[in-house]
Amino acid sequence: MPDDFERMWSDLAPLGRSPSSGGYFRQPFSGSERECHAWFVEQCAARGLRLEHDGNGNTVGWWDAGDGPAVLTGSHLDSVLDGGAYDGPLGVVSALGAIDLMRERGITPARPIGVAVFAEEEGSRFGLACLGSRLATGTTTPDQARALTDREGVRIEDAMVERGLEPQLGKADWLDDVGCYLELHVEQGRDLVHRDAPVGLASAIWPHGRYRFDFAGEANHAGTTAMADRHDPMLTYAMMALAAAKQARLAGGRATFGRLDVGPNATNAVPSRVTAWLDARCESDEVLTELLAVIEKQAGERADRDGTTVAVAAESVTPEVRFDEDLIARLVAGRPVIPTAAGHDAGVLATAGIPSAMLFVRNPSGVSHSPAETAETADCLVGVEALADALAELAR
Amino acid sequence: MPDDFERMWSDLAPLGRSPSSGGYFRQPFSGSERECHAWFVEQCAARGLRLEHDGNGNTVGWWDAGDGPAVLTGSHLDSVLDGGAYDGPLGVVSALGAIDLMRERGITPARPIGVAVFAEEEGSRFGLACLGSRLATGTTTPDQARALTDREGVRIEDAMVERGLEPQLGKADWLDDVGCYLELHVEQGRDLVHRDAPVGLASAIWPHGRYRFDFAGEANHAGTTAMADRHDPMLTYAMMALAAAKQARLAGGRATFGRLDVGPNATNAVPSRVTAWLDARCESDEVLTELLAVIEKQAGERADRDGTTVAVAAESVTPEVRFDEDLIARLVAGRPVIPTAAGHDAGVLATAGIPSAMLFVRNPSGVSHSPAETAETADCLVGVEALADALAELAR
Repeated sequence: MPDDFERMWSDLAPLGRSPSSGGYFRQPFSGSERECHAWFVEQCAARGLRLEHDGNGNTVGWWDAGDGPAVLTGSHLDSVLDGGAYDGPLGVVSALGAIDLMRERGITPARPIGVAVFAEEEGSRFGLACLGSRLATGTTTPDQARALTDREGVRIEDAMVERGLEPQLGKADWLDDVGCYLELHVEQGRDLVHRDAPVGLASAIWPHGRYRFDFAGEANHAGTTAMADRHDPMLTYAMMALAAAKQARLAGGRATFGRLDVGPNATNAVPSRVTAWLDARCESDEVLTELLAVIEKQAGERADRDGTTVAVAAESVTPEVRFDEDLIARLVAGRPVIPTAAGHDAGVLATAGIPSAMLFVRNPSGVSHSPAETAETADCLVGVEALADALAELAR
Repeated sequence: MPDDFERMWSDLAPLGRSPSSGGYFRQPFSGSERECHAWFVEQCAARGLRLEHDGNGNTVGWWDAGDGPAVLTGSHLDSVLDGGAYDGPLGVVSALGAIDLMRERGITPARPIGVAVFAEEEGSRFGLACLGSRLATGTTTPDQARALTDREGVRIEDAMVERGLEPQLGKADWLDDVGCYLELHVEQGRDLVHRDAPVGLASAIWPHGRYRFDFAGEANHAGTTAMADRHDPMLTYAMMALAAAKQARLAGGRATFGRLDVGPNATNAVPSRVTAWLDARCESDEVLTELLAVIEKQAGERADRDGTTVAVAAESVTPEVRFDEDLIARLVAGRPVIPTAAGHDAGVLATAGIPSAMLFVRNPSGVSHSPAETAETADCLVGVEALADALAELAR
């Protein structure tokens, strides 16, 4: 099994990788993500797993064993812009590895086992994370998805058609047969490093909001306009970025301005507008709501001083998700149980009423969404073993 | 003359105009700027002005009257991104209007008069303002110009060839015959409003620098990375933008961050890098140098705290330019004489040893580099008259 496991990684390693940064560019329905998808189809075929595609871009490879509600595992193959190797693929590769291990051990499941690859988990193209699982569960409606566009104005259905897919957005029948979902994922912090454990379980996902801040001012000449005569939205934004970071520290949460769009974006013009996207997460819904209120209030006060305006729109707000306590109790086996501030398809399925849990594999750097994301092969193999044991237990 | 003058404006009004903002997009060697250029060629032909093109993209329409050193006037037709109607075109339209007025008045110049249209005055495409006049005077060498690219990586010679021009970068012979240069321009502040004067003269151009700040940190997951574990270059940048504005206020100068480029620019990733361009101008070379030193020092200190790095590169630094005192004395006629913080081709020609002066026309909004830039027709006609009188005086 370790050899097959290594081979799967060497197959995936070059797909969508930037030669300069070493990071991955696997946006949904891009050429590189489709190469990853084609690789998954081959892997399923090689293992005799029956492929099922839904009209949302999600794919499942079924081990049609036994009967009754299926045990689902898997993850995603898309990445953020310049992302790491493990976020997503580790769950898919480990699921295939776990099936190999179960077969090596002669285990015959009493229920079907599915390996899912969900589309647009990162939200890096259409701006809404977990779009594939949201559509499949009905959490997001087809009309809501059709309103989304990528940065070039392309809609999801057109992006799918361009790659030869047949979009049919909406709730997916195949989820009706799923009894529980278990997603393995690289850890995105250093909790397991501090606990000296190669693998842990997730207790809950922090609430998470994405908000668009539109700062508007007045374009003007960068040389001739006295500082006192300006209405510069860049200054309102800059103060806001610092204030958001400070308030997040005070609240024990996270606030990030990682995406900006400036107009007209010219060196010698005071900008007329700055659009900035805030990603905010906190340990509870109440703390998140309070954090956003404080940031909005400070933005408004600074805008008044700058003679600018600021409008805030929530693009998505996901409340806290607690994973299934029975599942956790069955699978814990003395492992650490830790919360996460990252969203996952497992959170979407849990919210939709499918009992779900997650396994995390230690990440020495603690870094993710970056080429610096890491995982040791030995830890990954412990993860495969833990996943195989869990699937065997759940499919007894 | 007023009818012809209005007609020239109505010809130019739709070219490169954004239907949404009402601003102009006339980047050098773009389709819309070429339309403006074709209009200029027609206007010269209609007036019997002999056209001369140099290999830098500059064009002169010559009134081949008399002999001896020529009197040059004119300005530019390119705009910043989303710029106003008058910055540049007012000098060209007024020059043609001034020739019409001189001919109506039966004035026969004793020297040639040239109407110049200089290329890439704004630096909005290749990043170096006054590129056409810099090349023609030898202030910028052909190799320096060839090293510049636009945002798509296109070089100036390729941009010219794409439009059917024959680039031959370098010092232009036609400037050897020029005895003095007088550029009329819309005012880019409200000095003439406060002085209640429709037209004024320029005394000097403030020194002006453009600097690229490269802030580098570590990309990471926006949810899972604790605020204390981040190396977020956005925060270093944000503090710097606020500090630069404050220091410019204290120095009585200008500091603007109007252009930004963020990587990877994703909502759910702490950015790995922020590139920001600073436009800074002060009343003297010493004050500008001191302003930049203070900003750089504060950027470095904040970067140390954030665990980021910052590198500063001067993309262009133009020292103070004082206009020709004899010319000003001959043309002043009781008008206000005011400094400007905007760069102009007249500054480049003055630095290259060609006696130069500028006329400003009142701008009620004081705004420029924006669709909100304005000029009253009555003031523009006073400007044409002032320019016609000045050309007649200089070409006596």
